Amino acid sequence: MSDVTFPAGRSFDFTAIGRLCVDLNANEINRPMEETMSFTKYVGGSPANITIGMSRLGLRTAFIGKIADDAMGRFITGYLEKNGIDTANVVTDKTGAVTGLAFTEIKSPTDCSILMYRDNAADLKLSPSEVNEELIAGSSVLLISGTALAASPSREAVFLALDYARKHGTTVVFDIDYRPYTWKSAEETAVYYNLAAEKCDIIIGTREEFDMMERFEPNPERSDLFTAAKWFNYSTGIVIIKHGKEGSIAYTRDGAEHRAKSYPAKVVKTFGAGDSYAAGFLYGILSGWSIERSMEYGSAAACIVISSHSCSDAMPTAEQVDTYIERCNRGEITAN
Amino acid sequence: MSDVTFPAGRSFDFTAIGRLCVDLNANEINRPMEETMSFTKYVGGSPANITIGMSRLGLRTAFIGKIADDAMGRFITGYLEKNGIDTANVVTDKTGAVTGLAFTEIKSPTDCSILMYRDNAADLKLSPSEVNEELIAGSSVLLISGTALAASPSREAVFLALDYARKHGTTVVFDIDYRPYTWKSAEETAVYYNLAAEKCDIIIGTREEFDMMERFEPNPERSDLFTAAKWFNYSTGIVIIKHGKEGSIAYTRDGAEHRAKSYPAKVVKTFGAGDSYAAGFLYGILSGWSIERSMEYGSAAACIVISSHSCSDAMPTAEQVDTYIERCNRGEITAN
Amino acid sequence: MSDVTFPAGRSFDFTAIGRLCVDLNANEINRPMEETMSFTKYVGGSPANITIGMSRLGLRTAFIGKIADDAMGRFITGYLEKNGIDTANVVTDKTGAVTGLAFTEIKSPTDCSILMYRDNAADLKLSPSEVNEELIAGSSVLLISGTALAASPSREAVFLALDYARKHGTTVVFDIDYRPYTWKSAEETAVYYNLAAEKCDIIIGTREEFDMMERFEPNPERSDLFTAAKWFNYSTGIVIIKHGKEGSIAYTRDGAEHRAKSYPAKVVKTFGAGDSYAAGFLYGILSGWSIERSMEYGSAAACIVISSHSCSDAMPTAEQVDTYIERCNRGEITAN
Amino acid sequence: MSDVTFPAGRSFDFTAIGRLCVDLNANEINRPMEETMSFTKYVGGSPANITIGMSRLGLRTAFIGKIADDAMGRFITGYLEKNGIDTANVVTDKTGAVTGLAFTEIKSPTDCSILMYRDNAADLKLSPSEVNEELIAGSSVLLISGTALAASPSREAVFLALDYARKHGTTVVFDIDYRPYTWKSAEETAVYYNLAAEKCDIIIGTREEFDMMERFEPNPERSDLFTAAKWFNYSTGIVIIKHGKEGSIAYTRDGAEHRAKSYPAKVVKTFGAGDSYAAGFLYGILSGWSIERSMEYGSAAACIVISSHSCSDAMPTAEQVDTYIERCNRGEITAN
Repeated sequence: MSDVTFPAGRSFDFTAIGRLCVDLNANEINRPMEETMSFTKYVGGSPANITIGMSRLGLRTAFIGKIADDAMGRFITGYLEKNGIDTANVVTDKTGAVTGLAFTEIKSPTDCSILMYRDNAADLKLSPSEVNEELIAGSSVLLISGTALAASPSREAVFLALDYARKHGTTVVFDIDYRPYTWKSAEETAVYYNLAAEKCDIIIGTREEFDMMERFEPNPERSDLFTAAKWFNYSTGIVIIKHGKEGSIAYTRDGAEHRAKSYPAKVVKTFGAGDSYAAGFLYGILSGWSIERSMEYGSAAACIVISSHSCSDAMPTAEQVDTYIERCNRGEITAN
Repeated sequence: MSDVTFPAGRSFDFTAIGRLCVDLNANEINRPMEETMSFTKYVGGSPANITIGMSRLGLRTAFIGKIADDAMGRFITGYLEKNGIDTANVVTDKTGAVTGLAFTEIKSPTDCSILMYRDNAADLKLSPSEVNEELIAGSSVLLISGTALAASPSREAVFLALDYARKHGTTVVFDIDYRPYTWKSAEETAVYYNLAAEKCDIIIGTREEFDMMERFEPNPERSDLFTAAKWFNYSTGIVIIKHGKEGSIAYTRDGAEHRAKSYPAKVVKTFGAGDSYAAGFLYGILSGWSIERSMEYGSAAACIVISSHSCSDAMPTAEQVDTYIERCNRGEITAN
Repeated sequence: MSDVTFPAGRSFDFTAIGRLCVDLNANEINRPMEETMSFTKYVGGSPANITIGMSRLGLRTAFIGKIADDAMGRFITGYLEKNGIDTANVVTDKTGAVTGLAFTEIKSPTDCSILMYRDNAADLKLSPSEVNEELIAGSSVLLISGTALAASPSREAVFLALDYARKHGTTVVFDIDYRPYTWKSAEETAVYYNLAAEKCDIIIGTREEFDMMERFEPNPERSDLFTAAKWFNYSTGIVIIKHGKEGSIAYTRDGAEHRAKSYPAKVVKTFGAGDSYAAGFLYGILSGWSIERSMEYGSAAACIVISSHSCSDAMPTAEQVDTYIERCNRGEITAN
Repeated sequence: MSDVTFPAGRSFDFTAIGRLCVDLNANEINRPMEETMSFTKYVGGSPANITIGMSRLGLRTAFIGKIADDAMGRFITGYLEKNGIDTANVVTDKTGAVTGLAFTEIKSPTDCSILMYRDNAADLKLSPSEVNEELIAGSSVLLISGTALAASPSREAVFLALDYARKHGTTVVFDIDYRPYTWKSAEETAVYYNLAAEKCDIIIGTREEFDMMERFEPNPERSDLFTAAKWFNYSTGIVIIKHGKEGSIAYTRDGAEHRAKSYPAKVVKTFGAGDSYAAGFLYGILSGWSIERSMEYGSAAACIVISSHSCSDAMPTAEQVDTYIERCNRGEITAN
């Protein structure tokens, strides 16, 4: 796979920087949150979920982030460590910031929403001086998540991490992960997302997320090819544009367009689909698989997560993904 | 009871203004919150709890407050209404504020702590123009809670409510309820607490809370008599100073000092003790009882709440309090 | 004069708390500021001007305030000291605040405007712990200026100063001095102005300023009598309501209404008229003169200031006021 | 001159984006500002000064910026227009922002300081949607000034302007112009300065400014060559590093190092030296002169400005610079 290469001989296969938060998932589902009585606590946040996924799939992983100095923060670090993720660069905030929260409401498998607590969130307090150059130099992949660009000083920490990655030849993956409520304006978002994307090797986002990034560069027909082509002028090798139920398309620098089949699932909720897809896909290409096979693997991993109650806690092992694919191939799993 | 009188012929016995929030109580108790797996959701906030208590005891109650425009906010209003509290003056924030949260951690019956989410809290967005003069004119009692003084515009809303109450002869109860994390400085707190207390008929607080109010007026021996005497120069008739396990003392304008016996309880946690005490005590004096009998009633109501998992949801009816007192008197209840 | 009395035997006749700033007066007048080439620098701010006026009239004066740690701040302190004002309680900000500025534009004697710089102003950083109780206890009069109520912590400093003044029997004068640009909302302003006014012996303001204070207490006919009567329920003895060119009216607790004749002037600009009026009037009543004579004296002092280029620097001595009155009486001065 | 080229056939030779403010220069010099009595008003701000300089030298110029909606703002626009600068993209703030101020204090020709007013400054409110792509596409040169990167939304506006310039082949000049008081931290500054510099063709700064940019990339010997070399990996063609009295050095992509002789001057103050130098130098290279000749021209322009009272108003015409050089060459001008 020549579109993107990965440096060998590094201590870690995968390091992510960004959001660490707590999901509070409604225990009573298929009803509005007003009528929910209790919630179960999980580690959350896109880059956290992806890293947990990568670790479960057997890779050597680390995280760069910031947690609140409280029980929620300690819960997060403890969970990462239990999952084999190196947390030496997960620092503790000392300014009184809190852990970001996501209360999830599952009205039906297709009608899910999230109530976010992002004011004074600890993860956005990560500062440039807390970004460890050696760790980035010692990782094959650095994953950045767009949410971490939403505010200072986390925004500057991510730009510095990107700089370190370019300097040391670490391959950079950009998970766009656009959450409007943490941003001051769509204009501001577009400017920083574009600045960051210029320095990334793989960019993954939904069609709507790329639309937002094209605010100052009209693409009236919302052409995926136009969108992808821009980034191939920079260092990008793969652009994945997700079209929801219609599946994802991967564009590569050589001009090719890659699609993969998807798998059926008994859907409980849609949360976490993107994170498990990213973990599965990245695992594939890090393993040297074709883009198509990697996409299928991501798709199967996503099916497993959306069939269960949590995101992070449901991230599958390689064995679980393999089994799921086999069962699908045998026709044992059908959609709800 | 001539120390404080209550206007007759009003539509409501009791109206409170201030904090409305959500408590998330750990389901797995006697462990640190890091190890808690799930939480149960209750309505919370001192003035909310007291109002629910008053309503359960059979009084006609109303609330002036502000909720977030989300599922948490709708849950609060729904719960107040189910408890017979008039919510015509509970307005909905339109600025994107969130519901204040209190995660409770119960490590042991005597080692409890709270993890608060107060950034961008909807209750502190209540503005003066949202304070209904007619409602205050139509209530026998207005209860204000000190937490509502912590930030603008809620602070100004409370001062305006106090002004309306004085104008219409509504009796004012001040529950000090000092929560340092919502204030910019102890100096600021002391100034506004004193300004508010000057306009109140009954003041209820802990010794530590009165210490904080005396920041600019030294009382080196922390004399309760000195503390209470100051307020009798204004319109105050009763000052209750709470000394934790050593019990409370009520000082009255006539120079008397009142103490009451307390009851035993099988304590689960200490949260909510003050709120149920306030509800029981105020119910008593509104009923024309002696201060001592009112204090005992408050004490019994508090025992019921600290013996159960929640605060608001455990607020007792008059029948429950009476039964509790009878059982204690028969020696059927002993402390843990 | 029994409406308001002044404690005797104090070290200072007059102490003011509040705004200290710099006026930059256009040297080229009768043109818009766009065409102004240069500005002359003066000390400014209502309470500063009044204190300078009182000192020029021969009283023993002091100031409680905060200045920026820069050349502008040092200029202010130096000027106050040159004018015989005690500056032991003028403290220096250490947070990087700046000196408030007022650029004055004089298009014509009746068309004057001000361009204010009030962001991050040092005077609004005065904190309660910087208010010296002994100084207030040692002054006959404390003057507070409404602008100092516009933001924390200056607002709390003023409320604490009021508390000290009541405690020690110091007579309090409230110069309303409402400047909308420093306030968040008119609601907020009304609440704090009313809270402060309850504790003052003399209140001086324009009809428009009292209208603002009556935001929650309708006075649809804008009756001066209604306005003044409210404050006589508190400790106030004199309420002066200014009606611009139609002159001022002083209301006293005994129900009387006092008006005084005014003097002609060759007007250069209208700035500073209120400050010099206040200084002259207060000098009169502190001297035991009748309200009418005091008002006339204030009026003459105002004429002197509006006939000159500056505010602070033009504040007259008693000799200058006496001479002005004599010359008017001899018909030597006529209006422009 | 092949290090940097300039597109031909554009409507404007030079467009700047960024700070527009007002300088208030002490009329009484050689004394501390405390003793200054009056100030003269000039247009100020580095990019404004440079643009005025370019216009005086005969180039076709435009400005992209934001002014306060007051007399100061109108004064700025009026002055730019009088100097032949296109102001169609100088927009007026509607949020109540003020014009940034710089009070200059001249204690001696070598001891000058500035008292800045930058809180709520209108120039930092420029937003991306106010950046005109066509203007940038129609200009040979875009100059950005580092101060405009200090805060949102001006920071994003500059990054968008850089994007437009790269897209349309407009040559970009970066005047570092680092003013610490407008930034939150040196870390934040370094990150954004580096991000911007990557997209610039000519970078001009002092040794100290480049030190700040190298915060995360140690250059312990403060080597100019190391500093310059970094930028030649991007699109930069010329890096000018200023060493104060020891003169400036221009590094070019071809590895060469250029120095130029300087001229004597009767120095009144040092303000404005950098801006006039930049204008003179850029005029030279836009005219196709050698780097050395351009540097000498900048040096002569700077001498003229530091010999006079103002910055903007003293920017010389080409005739004035030529005359100055000739007089220096004839020995008619000597240093003070």
